[in-house]
Amino acid sequence: MDLQLLEHRVRVTSIDKSGLAFYTHPLVKLIFLPHHTRCKFFSLTESPEDYTVMLDEEGFKELPPSEYLHVAENTWRVMNVLANGFSCSAVPNVGVTKIAKSVIAPLAEHNVSVLMLSTYQTDYILVREEDLPVVFNTLSGDLRIYKDENGELVPFNLGESSKEMKKDVLFNQTVHPVLSPQNKFCILSIDPNALPSISSILLDVMFYSNTSQNRTPASSPEIESINFFAFSLIDGYISIVMDSETQKRFPTNLLLTSSSGELWRMVRIGGQPLGFDECGIVAQIAGPLADSDISAYYISTFNFDHALVPEEDIDNVIQLLRKRQESHR
Amino acid sequence: MDLQLLEHRVRVTSIDKSGLAFYTHPLVKLIFLPHHTRCKFFSLTESPEDYTVMLDEEGFKELPPSEYLHVAENTWRVMNVLANGFSCSAVPNVGVTKIAKSVIAPLAEHNVSVLMLSTYQTDYILVREEDLPVVFNTLSGDLRIYKDENGELVPFNLGESSKEMKKDVLFNQTVHPVLSPQNKFCILSIDPNALPSISSILLDVMFYSNTSQNRTPASSPEIESINFFAFSLIDGYISIVMDSETQKRFPTNLLLTSSSGELWRMVRIGGQPLGFDECGIVAQIAGPLADSDISAYYISTFNFDHALVPEEDIDNVIQLLRKRQESHR
Repeated sequence: MDLQLLEHRVRVTSIDKSGLAFYTHPLVKLIFLPHHTRCKFFSLTESPEDYTVMLDEEGFKELPPSEYLHVAENTWRVMNVLANGFSCSAVPNVGVTKIAKSVIAPLAEHNVSVLMLSTYQTDYILVREEDLPVVFNTLSGDLRIYKDENGELVPFNLGESSKEMKKDVLFNQTVHPVLSPQNKFCILSIDPNALPSISSILLDVMFYSNTSQNRTPASSPEIESINFFAFSLIDGYISIVMDSETQKRFPTNLLLTSSSGELWRMVRIGGQPLGFDECGIVAQIAGPLADSDISAYYISTFNFDHALVPEEDIDNVIQLLRKRQESHR
Repeated sequence: MDLQLLEHRVRVTSIDKSGLAFYTHPLVKLIFLPHHTRCKFFSLTESPEDYTVMLDEEGFKELPPSEYLHVAENTWRVMNVLANGFSCSAVPNVGVTKIAKSVIAPLAEHNVSVLMLSTYQTDYILVREEDLPVVFNTLSGDLRIYKDENGELVPFNLGESSKEMKKDVLFNQTVHPVLSPQNKFCILSIDPNALPSISSILLDVMFYSNTSQNRTPASSPEIESINFFAFSLIDGYISIVMDSETQKRFPTNLLLTSSSGELWRMVRIGGQPLGFDECGIVAQIAGPLADSDISAYYISTFNFDHALVPEEDIDNVIQLLRKRQESHR
């Protein structure tokens, strides 16, 4: 398996729920009228806490500063998995499980914070730009890292000067509580040319759903259903993760799913904001799932991490993760 | 000819060009997701100076106060023309010329300020709520005024107490300079059910056109082409006035025009803001046009008035209005 280091230099931001109206103008532009911007990497994820927006520097210019916008200090670089030497953007994604052992675990062991963004097409692994030397030195033994140069993939080479590496640290031992909301999710794509046909519904769902769509509290207070919606437009490919109830509002013929009617349950990590400096959070989940060969999508937000696993595996997953928690007590 | 006094209680507002992003969230809701509001009267007109928004009290609640929003003090009431005892909302409008003599001129003579809003479907005449007694007493000799009561039209009756009338004043003698920009306009409608199909283009034109669409300065500095775009959604009917160049961006099969390819030229009144307290401005144009039997649409904005006349009549109209100006010097 090979990785590609993409050109995008990404900023990770959080918009307060109360500030959405203030950012509707630039967000609508980035989502529906991307030809008006030079942004090539855009991701918006609504979670109960906030809107997490990850976007490249061209996109970031569109967001005016305000009290509602919180910006992570660092610039993040993006890697994705190459299948047979080619980016797998054109074929449906099979989840992060395959990279758990070879990418996520080694990075966690070397104290590298990782943000994950799984999409319909592929899995993006975001690391701090300043961590690139460690990332390269950690991973280049077992896999090859390429970059695009004038349309050709060439091996990525760090300068001689930057071969230093952080000291190995113990694998992070903080084990976060795991919540599993009751709603089911689907992972979809749509041809960008068809996006205008669903723009009214998308506008409604993304910018006006908080007032009209109040979730019924679930029977168990511990595991409620949550508002979660993710939209990304990266290198011309659209990916949408939505609740199966929300999906009913869209015309069925335009949205692409990897397999008909496949639904996913969410495992949400953390009872309090995780912070960017804690490493190994993705590894905590991805590892056990890989051991049991359970596929998963993974979406990091500003404060939490979210894994999506096949509906039929959820009980198994919760059991696995609880076992892990108990073994760490 | 009969008039109907509608239920809508309308506020007249102006949004600074620089404040559009701040109001994108509520405006998109009012335009594309009206089912999320109780607004039944909404009109947005972009002119070079500002965005004029006229909307009923339910709609007005959606606009948060800010330094960008200017609100005319009064509440305005809306009348429209009844054809054969029925509101003519369902059939294409024939312009304000027919009401010039019977409505506009008498109101001007009685010092009643009038805002006009012509749409594809009908002409709306807006008067201050406090002027209703004068309006009623001025007009009820020559025509009947109805209102809707539980779905039936009944004669509108002022209480006995409100039969006072302002003193007659001399017909307003201020004659404003008349400008005629070079671009051509069309007056269109679309089935509200088809609006989602053009929402991406509409979003672009209404909220993102200032940066991407810089008008070429016209050859004559005196008569330039201008940015002018009007959208209204009133009692479920949509009307759009746009530049013929802008129209080319829309799919041809969805927009309805009253007659194929009919284009209109604009006569713009005033070299400086008119203010709401000057009466007879509409009458200044509507009168001469009615004398010459030239049809016209009429759209008032916060600062200016705009008449649209058939392309082939524009030279004639300018000549008529200039003659009028000269006779007042």
